[in-house]
Amino acid sequence: MNFEAELKKKIEETNLILKEYIPEEKGLQKTIFEAFNYSLSVGGKRIRPILMQETFKIYSNDMEVIKPFMAAMEMIHTSSLVHDDLPCMDNDEYRRGKESVWKRFGEDIGTLTGDVLLIHAFEAAAKSLEKGADSKRFVRAMKTLAFNSGMYGMMGGQTVDLELTGKSINSEELEFIYKLKTAALIVASMEIGAIMGGASDEDIKTINCIAGNIGMAFQIRDDILDVISTTEELGKPILSDEKNNKTTYVTLFGEEKADIKVENLSNNALNSLKTLSGDYTFLENFIRMLADRKN
Amino acid sequence: MNFEAELKKKIEETNLILKEYIPEEKGLQKTIFEAFNYSLSVGGKRIRPILMQETFKIYSNDMEVIKPFMAAMEMIHTSSLVHDDLPCMDNDEYRRGKESVWKRFGEDIGTLTGDVLLIHAFEAAAKSLEKGADSKRFVRAMKTLAFNSGMYGMMGGQTVDLELTGKSINSEELEFIYKLKTAALIVASMEIGAIMGGASDEDIKTINCIAGNIGMAFQIRDDILDVISTTEELGKPILSDEKNNKTTYVTLFGEEKADIKVENLSNNALNSLKTLSGDYTFLENFIRMLADRKN
Repeated sequence: MNFEAELKKKIEETNLILKEYIPEEKGLQKTIFEAFNYSLSVGGKRIRPILMQETFKIYSNDMEVIKPFMAAMEMIHTSSLVHDDLPCMDNDEYRRGKESVWKRFGEDIGTLTGDVLLIHAFEAAAKSLEKGADSKRFVRAMKTLAFNSGMYGMMGGQTVDLELTGKSINSEELEFIYKLKTAALIVASMEIGAIMGGASDEDIKTINCIAGNIGMAFQIRDDILDVISTTEELGKPILSDEKNNKTTYVTLFGEEKADIKVENLSNNALNSLKTLSGDYTFLENFIRMLADRKN
Repeated sequence: MNFEAELKKKIEETNLILKEYIPEEKGLQKTIFEAFNYSLSVGGKRIRPILMQETFKIYSNDMEVIKPFMAAMEMIHTSSLVHDDLPCMDNDEYRRGKESVWKRFGEDIGTLTGDVLLIHAFEAAAKSLEKGADSKRFVRAMKTLAFNSGMYGMMGGQTVDLELTGKSINSEELEFIYKLKTAALIVASMEIGAIMGGASDEDIKTINCIAGNIGMAFQIRDDILDVISTTEELGKPILSDEKNNKTTYVTLFGEEKADIKVENLSNNALNSLKTLSGDYTFLENFIRMLADRKN
């Protein structure tokens, strides 16, 4: 199977895992079920759960214990998108070429949808224990998940991002924001894969570095796409950073240096990956694809 | 010690438990730490964690395994208040006599604060395993927590509440809203106490009924206080239901019937409590206090 076909299969597998957590759209509170399902079904690329699964597979074949965390990760990521789009945050009406949740269901339901995604994410993760996960690994994975998504991770990064938008910021502040806002969930994804798979502490450390590099490269590639892509290709308006008066890697260093940075970060990740023992062929191709992606 | 002094002590104990989860207010993302701490420190009555602890104590003395869930419950409850106060929800500027989180920190930080409270709630709960909690009880407690706070519980109730505000609603719909929006978290609190304490399935069922009655009584007492209290006593504007054109138990059945309903529900709870073996003297007084409370 070539990479494209394999990736497609993995996305479909992730969608099937998510499907287990999809509620029936009936009952008086039908709207929140609909909004929950809508938010999860509008064509995510499932990058984080796939990174988690592929890292896990280097160490273990017992896929049942990692699936709940894959679902949890995608729900947390989706929650952040749903709340990011709100009028009081980025005020985005479109996401992946479709109406954002608040635009379709209203701001109040948009707020609640992000909330239920978080709650049911952790409920999903807990199922890993029922599938036979080791209790110590489970706690470590839960802590990694919360640390990287909460105020020490993604949401801490969003706080700084919101506060500094429109202000002059330096490269250190920009790196801090990228590390927390974007890289943290990617770090959590791969680290949880390693933890639950039973990797050694040394390997977990290596994977933390690999994921950090991938995460930074991912955000800088996002900055580049906002400048070079089209609205159609990206599924959301381009030049949004300029519109929102946002400092990005591209506005600070220019497009050329941004390209080189993505290349370097990705190569660092690939080189570190080679120091691990196991089968990571797909992961290698996946990292390359992320660096060159068009949306 | 009399009841008042004992209650005060238990509130202080709960505050100490919460304190373990309070971040230092430093770093670039300082604002979210401040907002998190502010939201948890503005004088909550800690009703849910106390109900949880008291139920737990009927069955076990190993307090360390329940404390993480007490913190988690208060964080989830606080998250719901923070998001409820947002302009796109109830648009409340005051809570417990102080500025609401969004009013003090802005709508964007208000949204993020509710989110981090949810994430760190589940992180807190997971610590129970590190304190030696039984893994099966832990999973059951986590499911109970998520079920009752998410779209099948509190947030499902909020969805219906938002959709039906200003519309004519009947007593069945009202009961559905109260059961999910208010009673669900109280049910979860007591049920988690019982589960983690090692209660039998039969006792857990009884406690579910007791908590359901307490939860309904609690919400109806809230409706009554909105009519008979003062802004000073309540710490927030009175007559808000009328202002928001909201159907409540009082608008549907009148104040007198509402009083009787609170009395009956509380007596049901107290009678069921008597069928359990163990020490629940404080719990009895607490249930009576909740039925007569002034704020």
